[in-house]
Amino acid sequence: MIFPKVLDLILDLEGEFEIVEFRIGKKKEDYSYARIIVFGENEEHLNLILKELHKMGAKIPESEEVEVSPAPEDKVLPDNFYVTTNNRTFIHHIGKWVEVEGIAMDRVIVLKNGKAICLPINEVKKGDLVVIGERGVRIIPPERPRKSTYFEFMGGKVSSERPTEKMIEIIAREIVELKRVGGKIAVVAGPAVNHTAARDALAGLIRDGFVDLLLSGNALAVHDIEISIFGTSLGMDIKSGKPVPGGNRHHLYTISKIIAVGGIKNAVEKGMVRDGIMFECIRKRIPFILAGSIRDDGPLPEVITDVMIAKAEMKKALEGIDMVLMLATTLHSIAVGNLLPSWVKTICIDTNPATVMKLIDRGTYQAIGVVTDVGLFLPTLYAKVKEIAHS
Amino acid sequence: MIFPKVLDLILDLEGEFEIVEFRIGKKKEDYSYARIIVFGENEEHLNLILKELHKMGAKIPESEEVEVSPAPEDKVLPDNFYVTTNNRTFIHHIGKWVEVEGIAMDRVIVLKNGKAICLPINEVKKGDLVVIGERGVRIIPPERPRKSTYFEFMGGKVSSERPTEKMIEIIAREIVELKRVGGKIAVVAGPAVNHTAARDALAGLIRDGFVDLLLSGNALAVHDIEISIFGTSLGMDIKSGKPVPGGNRHHLYTISKIIAVGGIKNAVEKGMVRDGIMFECIRKRIPFILAGSIRDDGPLPEVITDVMIAKAEMKKALEGIDMVLMLATTLHSIAVGNLLPSWVKTICIDTNPATVMKLIDRGTYQAIGVVTDVGLFLPTLYAKVKEIAHS
Amino acid sequence: MIFPKVLDLILDLEGEFEIVEFRIGKKKEDYSYARIIVFGENEEHLNLILKELHKMGAKIPESEEVEVSPAPEDKVLPDNFYVTTNNRTFIHHIGKWVEVEGIAMDRVIVLKNGKAICLPINEVKKGDLVVIGERGVRIIPPERPRKSTYFEFMGGKVSSERPTEKMIEIIAREIVELKRVGGKIAVVAGPAVNHTAARDALAGLIRDGFVDLLLSGNALAVHDIEISIFGTSLGMDIKSGKPVPGGNRHHLYTISKIIAVGGIKNAVEKGMVRDGIMFECIRKRIPFILAGSIRDDGPLPEVITDVMIAKAEMKKALEGIDMVLMLATTLHSIAVGNLLPSWVKTICIDTNPATVMKLIDRGTYQAIGVVTDVGLFLPTLYAKVKEIAHS
Amino acid sequence: MIFPKVLDLILDLEGEFEIVEFRIGKKKEDYSYARIIVFGENEEHLNLILKELHKMGAKIPESEEVEVSPAPEDKVLPDNFYVTTNNRTFIHHIGKWVEVEGIAMDRVIVLKNGKAICLPINEVKKGDLVVIGERGVRIIPPERPRKSTYFEFMGGKVSSERPTEKMIEIIAREIVELKRVGGKIAVVAGPAVNHTAARDALAGLIRDGFVDLLLSGNALAVHDIEISIFGTSLGMDIKSGKPVPGGNRHHLYTISKIIAVGGIKNAVEKGMVRDGIMFECIRKRIPFILAGSIRDDGPLPEVITDVMIAKAEMKKALEGIDMVLMLATTLHSIAVGNLLPSWVKTICIDTNPATVMKLIDRGTYQAIGVVTDVGLFLPTLYAKVKEIAHS
Repeated sequence: MIFPKVLDLILDLEGEFEIVEFRIGKKKEDYSYARIIVFGENEEHLNLILKELHKMGAKIPESEEVEVSPAPEDKVLPDNFYVTTNNRTFIHHIGKWVEVEGIAMDRVIVLKNGKAICLPINEVKKGDLVVIGERGVRIIPPERPRKSTYFEFMGGKVSSERPTEKMIEIIAREIVELKRVGGKIAVVAGPAVNHTAARDALAGLIRDGFVDLLLSGNALAVHDIEISIFGTSLGMDIKSGKPVPGGNRHHLYTISKIIAVGGIKNAVEKGMVRDGIMFECIRKRIPFILAGSIRDDGPLPEVITDVMIAKAEMKKALEGIDMVLMLATTLHSIAVGNLLPSWVKTICIDTNPATVMKLIDRGTYQAIGVVTDVGLFLPTLYAKVKEIAHS
Repeated sequence: MIFPKVLDLILDLEGEFEIVEFRIGKKKEDYSYARIIVFGENEEHLNLILKELHKMGAKIPESEEVEVSPAPEDKVLPDNFYVTTNNRTFIHHIGKWVEVEGIAMDRVIVLKNGKAICLPINEVKKGDLVVIGERGVRIIPPERPRKSTYFEFMGGKVSSERPTEKMIEIIAREIVELKRVGGKIAVVAGPAVNHTAARDALAGLIRDGFVDLLLSGNALAVHDIEISIFGTSLGMDIKSGKPVPGGNRHHLYTISKIIAVGGIKNAVEKGMVRDGIMFECIRKRIPFILAGSIRDDGPLPEVITDVMIAKAEMKKALEGIDMVLMLATTLHSIAVGNLLPSWVKTICIDTNPATVMKLIDRGTYQAIGVVTDVGLFLPTLYAKVKEIAHS
Repeated sequence: MIFPKVLDLILDLEGEFEIVEFRIGKKKEDYSYARIIVFGENEEHLNLILKELHKMGAKIPESEEVEVSPAPEDKVLPDNFYVTTNNRTFIHHIGKWVEVEGIAMDRVIVLKNGKAICLPINEVKKGDLVVIGERGVRIIPPERPRKSTYFEFMGGKVSSERPTEKMIEIIAREIVELKRVGGKIAVVAGPAVNHTAARDALAGLIRDGFVDLLLSGNALAVHDIEISIFGTSLGMDIKSGKPVPGGNRHHLYTISKIIAVGGIKNAVEKGMVRDGIMFECIRKRIPFILAGSIRDDGPLPEVITDVMIAKAEMKKALEGIDMVLMLATTLHSIAVGNLLPSWVKTICIDTNPATVMKLIDRGTYQAIGVVTDVGLFLPTLYAKVKEIAHS
Repeated sequence: MIFPKVLDLILDLEGEFEIVEFRIGKKKEDYSYARIIVFGENEEHLNLILKELHKMGAKIPESEEVEVSPAPEDKVLPDNFYVTTNNRTFIHHIGKWVEVEGIAMDRVIVLKNGKAICLPINEVKKGDLVVIGERGVRIIPPERPRKSTYFEFMGGKVSSERPTEKMIEIIAREIVELKRVGGKIAVVAGPAVNHTAARDALAGLIRDGFVDLLLSGNALAVHDIEISIFGTSLGMDIKSGKPVPGGNRHHLYTISKIIAVGGIKNAVEKGMVRDGIMFECIRKRIPFILAGSIRDDGPLPEVITDVMIAKAEMKKALEGIDMVLMLATTLHSIAVGNLLPSWVKTICIDTNPATVMKLIDRGTYQAIGVVTDVGLFLPTLYAKVKEIAHS
């Protein structure tokens, strides 16, 4: 689809072009290829066009050396610094193309000992050599292979009007297959997982080895443990859905108990917490990151209250992750989406279609949305995963 | 709760009162009782207050004869005609209280051969004796028994943050118990039941005898039969969720085929349609009403295209129904809600909480909302119903 | 964008191709042009490919005569009948291309006295010559001119995160300019226009000549007149937003009064109704169509209770309309969207982004969504329209 | 309304009662009063009943001394600690009732030098005397005065179907009147205020002295300043709504520029930022708190990245605030709602009714929801405020 967009853009910017070569990949695995000569009114005009073409993945043939400039102070960037996308990115440095490590959107590229590293603004140190301009930078947009799998068909559409059970089966199959080849899966979850009583299913997925990383906040852990200790989530009996007299105190009592023993890990080890999401994470040594928010009570000792530290930890933990399941959480979904490279499979579950739309709007184009209730989604998914894994 | 509201109202209208008697039911089954003397500034003022009190269920002691006036023309009502609520209603006629038949909100009461009949405006005929004013009319608001069942706790709240599976179990139990005592259940369903592939579950509920009436529209039937004939719903393969090439024609081809054989019933009998919602309705002789809308293609021969006729048929069919399940349809839910007496158990399933809020806002106060995906709700419900029925 | 899609499709269907000619329009007003030779494995295979290409707007060069077959019965269609899109469509009949009249999606084409007419299934009569297959049918997708106006930029996206006031100004400018060149504008409105008190603004737009057709239902008219007679909408005082004691009866009293005088027109002429949306329509002789729904009380005499008749009237009235404003109504928006050719400018206003998404999903691709509150949208729009019209 | 609830509760808990005295306030300003003798089966049973009655605002006559127990460690609470509501609360200490300072929900009460202070768990220090149990604690629920103002009628309902312009006028009147008597108003705002171009109106309200505190996050400030420097919000031209080529870099360039000069304040003082929300806050010395989130880029130097510090600062700044306007932000609205006493007027503006429902669900019962588009709400509100202030 990119070819006519390129031609369009050139015309929109009042440039001209000549198509020199044009090959469409005839086999399903082939990529297409086009060579175009672009004419601008003058060098400045031509550069403007090339700059925009670059962003669409066009390779500017003269492989010029990337330009860098030192950061004048910590967190202060040189003018015209290059802003990253979430696509695979290379810079042309001393005659060869170097892949940028840790790519994510809306960051900068720093050149360090021949390596190209993607950093957020707040991690740039005085003197870091920051890439400026587009020269010598090349990005490779995600190639959609022609032979679309069942999984891929779901992309690019958000709809509540699809066969929900079937879609869950497709996701379950993808999860099982990914784990079979050693892939890694992260789960991003909001507290509704507890309120809707889908917690046992998530705990089961962790226990059975289908989750490699859990990203969440204080509330998920608090209510998960509240269920373990009191049988309630935000004071509501999770077996009957009825509010329990005095139940409103349970989440604070839970927090206090966990603080008293020094954290979730200790609480599990002391046998205070005997089931649930956090219990399985601790027991199976699955890493988890709980990022703080201004809405938190407590918080639990494991919660990282400085959001920039939490974000940096999340980015580090996401390295090597192949798939992310986002469960009923808008803030965390968008935050994690910002940290992901474009080739990570991203599935977003929410009853509100606007959450998925916003995630995609904010640049996580690879996200697939399933508009459904996490309270039924997770139990159904877990049942399907077990069924497929054992077949 | 009504007692202080009554006192409040009197004060708001600048009346005065004296509490003569006040008994709270001490056992859980008892009702409470209060006797109040109300003072107004003059008769007109007093009548205004009594009029308002009447609407809250207060019984005005002097059981005056109900007042009626003849309709001057078909559909034309006498001044000051009485507008019904959906509560149980009696009129005081020739010294005794007569219950109004066919009560529903926003209608009028007509006195015919000693009977009191609730009619919509468009069914009033010239000369019908229409009740006017509030005199001699008594309404009984739904009494909430103190001993609340699990089912009842769910009322009055719309939330997506509740244990979905547990709530479905409660609904399933209610359905099974209702059928055991000979109760009757109606289903109001939108076309999303097909798109989300929950159709087999609804067909199963009908086949197993849990549905006594189906209220829907053209689209539900068309896509249900489209699945039966083509395996697609609105052109999307229901097994894979993928659009099928040329699938956009399937629903029109379906309509044409059904028209050609003279309707759904014939299509089932000729073996053209061999499974699904409509198939089970026909086979099990479960009555269904398909009401037309301006969005309809076709429509199928069984669709009633005149909405006032459809509405009258729906009202008639709903007589004796004890429970209504409303599945993913805003227009039909509100329309059916308007036709229901307040004592019919009403459960509304939708991914959008606004649908349930609107239903309640429009006067169907008894509605219980479950904010979830019908595509998972129905299969889960059907599984639970079977499990409970066989235990 | 269509060119690579065409090539893709050919490869997907395992065909081969050769690009003979390829011209991109160099000036902004030009259209692009490509000539491709397509190879299939055999005639059947080639026809399959051409059938799919046809749907994308490709012109199959050998202009074969269109094929027709007579309808065996009223509403019964011959096998393999052609299903229309909402794009401009031509059939090749006796050596020339004839444009199909009254095009709309999901209908059939009937050949009558050399004319090609687009009909819904239910209007097909026994013996009508219905187009079958794709041969000899050509559709022209809407051409997006390169020189996009401010108006067009808004297309294809639904977002609540845009400069609302600016967008309204753009719509206002489009309305004023359209009326200056003699264009025609239809308004499709839901009852929320009354409840949110935006009614005066809509009445103003009608009075000032910016509306040529009003499509709505019973509720819009009832509450509009309720405001005129009682100052309430569904019993809520429109000046204060407070419910009025006894106000729940107002809409039935309104209906009864209007039925008694024989309809809205008579009520306006007798001076019973002195302002509002319906008043301005009657006074300015703006045609309106009120389509019935199963939710209606009454209904008012002007309401068309048979939905198929209402739909046919709506289709007829929409002829020659250049722009449609859809205001806070899901059912009517989608119903009217189905009746529109793809070149009619369509703007859909709703607080719920799902309404616009559904409209587009159902095939009204040209729809532009503005996610905002009609209660503020209409007054702001009317103010802007007046400002621009007088400048 | 509370009286029958009390009786109900006693019966539900299987207690018995005798009504000794019962006085309804006859004038509109009066409060009602009831004296009830409660019987339990034994002391334990009676205490259970009294505990629950206490939570409903019932005053248990024997004014026992409040019980306290020292915190064993920092952040570790004694067993059975008292959990606060957001209502006005007193403790009975050495024979007199002492009001709890800084009340907010889900916190604890600490007794310090004869003062009762409400603290979050994480601020409790080892040895602090923490109130335990309910004995000697009395809460006063917000009294709804009988003479409801226009403002109050809006409470307790969330609906998009109300006269929006009229409701804004009521809010505007409340704002102007509150400022006339020296009241204080806080604004909690999300970044949509910028994207929808409502920023000028908010800046105007600040400039004209109607805002005493701004609570928000990094994104609001970044995009506000992005508009000031680049004329875009998230890269979209705020005058046309069109995306600007290269605009995606603007927000990072903005952040970098502000970091380089040492913060927003410096940027304003150096003339880099010449208009907008932050500009007016700085110029008018209106305090603002920007709380960090894991979604933040940068962040700007003024952003507090530790959420617990941010929360503590917000609580401190909210002291003495009489009214809070929450504009299009779910997370911040709920977080601020948790910090507010129940007597602070709270208005929540969002296009999504679920935001307001969640706010109320989480205990901010006093919140009034207006379901509308902030992009039109703020300009309309600002215009009305100016109009009313100058009349």
